[in-house]
Amino acid sequence: MAMIDDILSAISADQGAALDRLFAFLSIPSISAIPAHFPDCERAADWLVGQLSELGFEAAKRPTAGRPMVTGHIKASRRDAPHVLFYGHYDVQPVDPLNLWRHPPFEPRLESGPNGERIVGRGASDDKGQLMTFLEACRAYGAKGGPPCHVTALFEGEEETGSPSLPAFLAENAKTLKADIALVCDTGMWDRATPAITTSLRGIVNEEVILHGANRDLHSGLYGGVAVNPIHVLSRVLGALHDDAGAIAIPGFYDGVEELPEEIAQQWTELDLDVAAFLGEVGLTTPVGERGRSPREQLWSRPSCDVNGIAGGYAGEGSKTVLPAKASAKVSFRLVGKQNPERVAQSFRAFVSSRLPPDIRAEFVGRGGSAAVTLPIKNEALRRARRALEAEWGKPPALIGCGASIPIVGSFKRDLNMDSLLVGFALEDDQIHSPNEKYERASFHKGARSWARILAALAS
Amino acid sequence: MAMIDDILSAISADQGAALDRLFAFLSIPSISAIPAHFPDCERAADWLVGQLSELGFEAAKRPTAGRPMVTGHIKASRRDAPHVLFYGHYDVQPVDPLNLWRHPPFEPRLESGPNGERIVGRGASDDKGQLMTFLEACRAYGAKGGPPCHVTALFEGEEETGSPSLPAFLAENAKTLKADIALVCDTGMWDRATPAITTSLRGIVNEEVILHGANRDLHSGLYGGVAVNPIHVLSRVLGALHDDAGAIAIPGFYDGVEELPEEIAQQWTELDLDVAAFLGEVGLTTPVGERGRSPREQLWSRPSCDVNGIAGGYAGEGSKTVLPAKASAKVSFRLVGKQNPERVAQSFRAFVSSRLPPDIRAEFVGRGGSAAVTLPIKNEALRRARRALEAEWGKPPALIGCGASIPIVGSFKRDLNMDSLLVGFALEDDQIHSPNEKYERASFHKGARSWARILAALAS
Repeated sequence: MAMIDDILSAISADQGAALDRLFAFLSIPSISAIPAHFPDCERAADWLVGQLSELGFEAAKRPTAGRPMVTGHIKASRRDAPHVLFYGHYDVQPVDPLNLWRHPPFEPRLESGPNGERIVGRGASDDKGQLMTFLEACRAYGAKGGPPCHVTALFEGEEETGSPSLPAFLAENAKTLKADIALVCDTGMWDRATPAITTSLRGIVNEEVILHGANRDLHSGLYGGVAVNPIHVLSRVLGALHDDAGAIAIPGFYDGVEELPEEIAQQWTELDLDVAAFLGEVGLTTPVGERGRSPREQLWSRPSCDVNGIAGGYAGEGSKTVLPAKASAKVSFRLVGKQNPERVAQSFRAFVSSRLPPDIRAEFVGRGGSAAVTLPIKNEALRRARRALEAEWGKPPALIGCGASIPIVGSFKRDLNMDSLLVGFALEDDQIHSPNEKYERASFHKGARSWARILAALAS
Repeated sequence: MAMIDDILSAISADQGAALDRLFAFLSIPSISAIPAHFPDCERAADWLVGQLSELGFEAAKRPTAGRPMVTGHIKASRRDAPHVLFYGHYDVQPVDPLNLWRHPPFEPRLESGPNGERIVGRGASDDKGQLMTFLEACRAYGAKGGPPCHVTALFEGEEETGSPSLPAFLAENAKTLKADIALVCDTGMWDRATPAITTSLRGIVNEEVILHGANRDLHSGLYGGVAVNPIHVLSRVLGALHDDAGAIAIPGFYDGVEELPEEIAQQWTELDLDVAAFLGEVGLTTPVGERGRSPREQLWSRPSCDVNGIAGGYAGEGSKTVLPAKASAKVSFRLVGKQNPERVAQSFRAFVSSRLPPDIRAEFVGRGGSAAVTLPIKNEALRRARRALEAEWGKPPALIGCGASIPIVGSFKRDLNMDSLLVGFALEDDQIHSPNEKYERASFHKGARSWARILAALAS
């Protein structure tokens, strides 16, 4: 196996060609949400198969009910090397509003930015640029005898449309996809100088409740004051979900919520979250949520509950004297630690049901859920990746959490019993999903170098 | 002036021709909500001008920005006779769903029903049949020297579309329309054996409140637990509108609410409201509302508050992890006694504003309102009408309330300082606004006789 310094030098020397490759990939408008672009998704998949084959992978485009998967396998020279699964996605978001782009979204180009050159185009950051950091690392290894780990690549073309084909594909290919650890490159840095590893993701439970009252909409003049109004009942129930200290008032809800490991707590205290700036950017000033918990905890390591939608009665222009027959709300819970999604859903339903007056019937619709995912602080791959990133960036990576779910990570854990190492080089101002999406040239270049170091560290 | 018995005999003798006239009127599809029927509204107005002229009224079709008004004036022979304004409307509701009609809605016919013959067709009860009861009384008087009161007729063609042209018309014609009392025939009997006079109508205030939080919709995973959710705040505010005893918790809300006069309270106690049947018909069992008040009071003489609509966040299929930027509710209040609509609106706004956490801004949209209307129990016209109705029906009329507003009655009071006597002969099963609308032949016949008696009583 080549010395890591040779590999890193090769990556640095090959930057121009690497950019050409990324630009070719970015030129394919593989928008998975728009049927007219389905052929482009096929082209993007074919292009990846070509790349992988060039790098010595045994690669294939794999049909699904939707957009195809791309898989590839390459062996390390050392038989007892660890096996990693690298996941990325080749599909991108739609480009509307097109008029806000400085140049056509699928004609990528380099622009100079305040922090050096940046690659601008749809998918530059999410996720084509990130995906290519890993392939460029593999390319550098390829010229010097191959990667130090057995590598399986899994590229999806439906991430931006909810990954409908993924669960079945994982189930059918569990044997070939299961590795010692998954490497996922779809997250961000802490800031432009500080790499990050995302070690916890909140889970989610989605519930819908519909309260039914009278058997039809009533005239509020003829029935108002006597007939029960489902909106009133729903308001009372939803208004009781949080107590006055911002905690969620559902009995048993906090079962399975754990305190942070000390090292993580220490890390987070050191991470300087500018709450005023974070909230100010969206027009807010004051954090709500559990009293006694920092905003960082509230976002990453404490569960939350939000009503995502509410509807009932007349919603048109002006007024209408209706006393509605029903009212409904979509409620979601963000889970942490060992909170059980099914138990949370049941507790919510019991909470609602226990608050209903006569004549109100609750209908519940479960919209699914997934548990939180945590990479234990003692995980060996995590330990090695931290060292590798520190070597590349000159400072240790921040160990951060994420308030949202990344479904693939939950699937890897649940369906393949495989932990994920989430390392990415996106920055907060990358404008992902928005016009003029960009990826810093430094993210692309040092990202490739970071993966080269991580692969070496995992194999050492 | 003819003896009342002659007039009543003439009405009874002329029933066949009276039905022919009503059928001619019912054959005109004067649906005010549908532009294709605007010419029919003109025809209906012309037809009424013809009727009034035939009866000796000085009649005219009066253009408005919408459908025309019809006015008519006729003098009593006695100069010092009282002056009454009779109001009715010639427009009708749309007929959908057409397939549920037993025969075409504008081909009226007599059918036999469980309680005698009934007139079936759109507008049979609301309001063409009711309107014609008064004109048939005038016709009987016309053949015998004219009505005993000065009569002004006012027929509207936009009642079913919210009377948009009425306020301006009343203002411009206040001098010729103002009378000693308005007679309005657009209400119902207590039951098929018991006439009724509606002596109180609740007023209304319509408000809309929009709570604004962040400057855009947020991702509930990335902000949930820290960013304020307007739906949560709105739920808490709306959930606090009623206290645990069902009373409205807005400070000052009950200012101007009065206890019932003893005679009305006594009447209502005697009126046998079958709460189980009233609620059972719409699938409910249990009255809500102010504890310690009978359902009859809750509906007629106590104010109420209903949220008529609520909206916020995602309302489509499935779930979406949005933490919405705003949430809104349409709230209406039914007023009684001397409650002041503007003060109620202000109290509501103050109540909401006092409950807002930081970062939530309330926007209020006033949708107008009107005070409750009450005809005092001592009113002389009421006293005389009670006697007249008792003579016709063999039992005294029920003095009832109505939980809803009749805007024209509020306008007469507010704009012309004129009380209204609300007498009508509709029955609860008349299916107004629905397929197979009907009016009992007995309502039509005895209704005309009732008006003849009321006119005589007012003039005596």
